[in-house]
Amino acid sequence: MHELHNRGALSRSELVARTGLTRSAIRGLIGELVAAGLLSEQPGMSQGTPGRPSPLVRPHPARGVVLALEITVDSLAAATVGLGGEVFDRVRSDRPRSRSSFDETVADLAALARTVRAQLPEEATLIGFGVAVVGIVRRADGFVTLAPNLGWRDVPLGERIADALGTSLPIAVANEADLGALAELRRGAARGADHVLFLSGEVGVGGGVIVDGKPLTGAAGYGGEVGHIPVNPEGARCRCGSIGCWETEVGEGALLRRAGHPPDAGTEGVDAVLREAAEGAPGALAALDAAGRWLGFGLAGLVNVFNPQVVVLGGLFGRIHPFVEEKVHAELGRLALPQSRDVVRVVPASLGVDAPLLGAAELAFEPLLADPAMWIRPAEATA
Amino acid sequence: MHELHNRGALSRSELVARTGLTRSAIRGLIGELVAAGLLSEQPGMSQGTPGRPSPLVRPHPARGVVLALEITVDSLAAATVGLGGEVFDRVRSDRPRSRSSFDETVADLAALARTVRAQLPEEATLIGFGVAVVGIVRRADGFVTLAPNLGWRDVPLGERIADALGTSLPIAVANEADLGALAELRRGAARGADHVLFLSGEVGVGGGVIVDGKPLTGAAGYGGEVGHIPVNPEGARCRCGSIGCWETEVGEGALLRRAGHPPDAGTEGVDAVLREAAEGAPGALAALDAAGRWLGFGLAGLVNVFNPQVVVLGGLFGRIHPFVEEKVHAELGRLALPQSRDVVRVVPASLGVDAPLLGAAELAFEPLLADPAMWIRPAEATA
Repeated sequence: MHELHNRGALSRSELVARTGLTRSAIRGLIGELVAAGLLSEQPGMSQGTPGRPSPLVRPHPARGVVLALEITVDSLAAATVGLGGEVFDRVRSDRPRSRSSFDETVADLAALARTVRAQLPEEATLIGFGVAVVGIVRRADGFVTLAPNLGWRDVPLGERIADALGTSLPIAVANEADLGALAELRRGAARGADHVLFLSGEVGVGGGVIVDGKPLTGAAGYGGEVGHIPVNPEGARCRCGSIGCWETEVGEGALLRRAGHPPDAGTEGVDAVLREAAEGAPGALAALDAAGRWLGFGLAGLVNVFNPQVVVLGGLFGRIHPFVEEKVHAELGRLALPQSRDVVRVVPASLGVDAPLLGAAELAFEPLLADPAMWIRPAEATA
Repeated sequence: MHELHNRGALSRSELVARTGLTRSAIRGLIGELVAAGLLSEQPGMSQGTPGRPSPLVRPHPARGVVLALEITVDSLAAATVGLGGEVFDRVRSDRPRSRSSFDETVADLAALARTVRAQLPEEATLIGFGVAVVGIVRRADGFVTLAPNLGWRDVPLGERIADALGTSLPIAVANEADLGALAELRRGAARGADHVLFLSGEVGVGGGVIVDGKPLTGAAGYGGEVGHIPVNPEGARCRCGSIGCWETEVGEGALLRRAGHPPDAGTEGVDAVLREAAEGAPGALAALDAAGRWLGFGLAGLVNVFNPQVVVLGGLFGRIHPFVEEKVHAELGRLALPQSRDVVRVVPASLGVDAPLLGAAELAFEPLLADPAMWIRPAEATA
């Protein structure tokens, strides 16, 4: 199921080769999953080789649909995604930063979820929910312990969304940078890599780290918080309460301030800085230069620690990438160990702003992919 | 084999419980491994419960012996260790820092290896070598790409040791901090933990990171180089060529310089600083205070990134631990995210200076533990 979900369609022979299972085991499994409606099979295309072509197996998107949700400072988003990665519908709703109280957010999010759910085709089977949030999340129960940029502390997000939606389906909640990493790993810029560092810049700086193909979660699920590495002993106070965290130097606020804009000017402020830089305004260019320098400074340490194959820059960092690419490269050259620097590619995210949303969908697929047999029975129907 | 090697002796019933294998599978495996001489079995002790007590199984140390070697800036060391962790013999030989050319080191190390090997009991079966070195190592072939504190670059260490010893047994080489971590994980301060950060201070600062029970190696085996995280944009030039690396602030040289000693005064210089501090000398106390502050500063970032259960301080950091413990704790309180800070214990290494040497032994046991069946045939005999 993993292989088919990630790659779309494969012949039986390819499945045998990729999974290491025997031909008869593959035949048996496919039979069960086709009967359960999760897969469909069609005659293979002749490839000009002798013998009967191997039948092509593909996931049946509507029979395993997840509903993905995302909470950022500036917007809420929802999408319905089918097995195999087909996006049925997606909606993003911008909102004023003031409207981010916990209760309002849950209510707005539930409304958005109902909208996309209502658009699903009749035969669709919803199997679960995934939620991406700009905060620190205890994965086991979707409890958000801290989301400084939303002003939240210790809120039972997973539980409250379940209540608001009146659902008993599983709801998996995770940090949006972690989920952006998961999406870029499965379907984006880091496809195929096993050691990946994903950096997502927004108001704060989130990180997702993939070690040996798996997300780094740490002892209690709080791992990967690279935005709060102290980088400047003489630095500014951070929203997390600490001093000189990396995000105080590379976050949106620092860029805006250095470019002479109000630090809370948000996405529109960043748009203005990028416009000014494109026109050659010295203040904007200097601010982007400083951002690139600090980005490279922190990245050098992380490259030394993780020795990744790919660093994926998402959110704000993806947008400023064309302006900071050279500076980041120069700083890595100056500060990172050659052994690790030489193997790493630094690339912008390829899924754009929707990466965390698509990652939330991938998270919601995990139980089905881990144990498809559990799902060979009717699930809650959408209707 | 893993369970028996790590725990010493277990009853058949405990092996069934720990491995999840069936009773008859365990009986079969033990039979083969006893026949091969790797394990021995003796009648179990009655535990006051009804029925025949389960026989006690233990590794046979002499039938699987490894020779561990260690190269630090100040000393060379060798040990012979049997299956189950019994140390037969260990020798450490101090040396002047000047005598660290690659050729001299290999020759001295081979002589030390021959010394401990000659002391092995007659029935001992040597199965491989493990080498710990203060440098950056490509694990696949034991090639050292950079060991700045030894002045080495691109030297085929594994190959040259094999030549000097005239052996065809496997020689596994790894970074000494990584191996210190492995030893503390298997037999020391981090026993039982799955998320561990090991910091070893010497001339440089090495790190070993355990993520989900496994060493973090990164894409090409260079992961875990936490000593070269840039922490001070205004800092000093590091031996690695970069600026303001963590080791320029917390390494031995920084401590000695701040305490008014020559930065190359080595272990004896550190001894002097600790003596002065114990007597209340303000210069020494201030230097240790600064070391604790910088140690906490860098640790806060790593705790946020890795969310470990335990941070183990080895080498220099283990020695200064009593003097810096409070400061490190205060800095973590000020700079680390509460969620990650609250679950982490910061403890000194419990295996002392020999941790990397014992880790090299553990590394050399890996092939046997991973596939004991491969070893159910006579290996190269020591004689």
